[in-house]
Amino acid sequence: MGRWEPNSEQRFLVAAIELFGEIGFERTTVAAIAQRAGLTARTFFRYFADKREVLFNGSEQLQKTMVDALAGAPAEASPVDAVAAALAKAADFFNEERRPFARVRNAVIAANPELHERELIKLATLSAALAAALRERGVDGPDASLAAEAGMAVFRVAFMQWVSESEQRGYGEIVDESLARLRALAGG
Amino acid sequence: MGRWEPNSEQRFLVAAIELFGEIGFERTTVAAIAQRAGLTARTFFRYFADKREVLFNGSEQLQKTMVDALAGAPAEASPVDAVAAALAKAADFFNEERRPFARVRNAVIAANPELHERELIKLATLSAALAAALRERGVDGPDASLAAEAGMAVFRVAFMQWVSESEQRGYGEIVDESLARLRALAGG
Repeated sequence: MGRWEPNSEQRFLVAAIELFGEIGFERTTVAAIAQRAGLTARTFFRYFADKREVLFNGSEQLQKTMVDALAGAPAEASPVDAVAAALAKAADFFNEERRPFARVRNAVIAANPELHERELIKLATLSAALAAALRERGVDGPDASLAAEAGMAVFRVAFMQWVSESEQRGYGEIVDESLARLRALAGG
Repeated sequence: MGRWEPNSEQRFLVAAIELFGEIGFERTTVAAIAQRAGLTARTFFRYFADKREVLFNGSEQLQKTMVDALAGAPAEASPVDAVAAALAKAADFFNEERRPFARVRNAVIAANPELHERELIKLATLSAALAAALRERGVDGPDASLAAEAGMAVFRVAFMQWVSESEQRGYGEIVDESLARLRALAGG
């Protein structure tokens, strides 16, 4: 009880998302998640404040990864190219191992207004962080906001495609295509 | 008491936004709004469910106006041009008479997380409505989402400029410039 267990966080994540998929988010209790994971509820609360936190685990790390990639883009990269570097880096995060989790997560969030609000705030925060990182590179305020928001448009659309049931392509490939589509649409 | 008064809704809107600006959203009561408007609280509740509704008054009308403009764009208009027609039409809504109201509203929403969430949902709903209207025009799903989200990027950035204290230009002019900037950024 409460002692260190290998991969506890990952085991809670897998157990929680299985249960969310099987019986729904609302009916899943922390006790059930812990039981499924072969761990205790007390240990669960060492990793997560509540079951909602399972769904937003890693958000800050994703944001940091993307902001770092944007900041590390070559100095001569255009604002949109710098944002593209951030979007490409997110492919490390959205890998095949994570896709089944992301699909269940997406369905849970779509069905729950409170979680949907939180997701929207997370995305708005990410957009603001990318815009701030562009301004750090010397991009004008409105251009920084426009490039960041346009990048988030690509991010959202690519993500929704990536988690759709029939989609086979990887996130990186979809993002590249979406960015090319945005360039064609905006330039046309 | 409760009888018909001319321009009651408009009088409540003006009174509420004056009070939000003077003493803040949190400290403004419906009783105070009614008193300032020279009307009764009972009449207030015939127009608004609560004081938050004052801030979101007209959202549905704005969405309908924008969707109708998009649907009414020439058949040969590109997806982004059709979205541009919707953005341009919003200029009728964001006129000079409304700018002082919009400035106070923006400050109130920025300071209140719950209102900010609601604003994000409103914008996400508007984006989805524009994407749906593009699909009605025969635009592919991902392209419709990308064009609508890119248009919302322009909408948000232009709106934030329009309500900034030092801004003199009208919303229509700012939107045109933002759209041209997005085209240059994405095309470059």
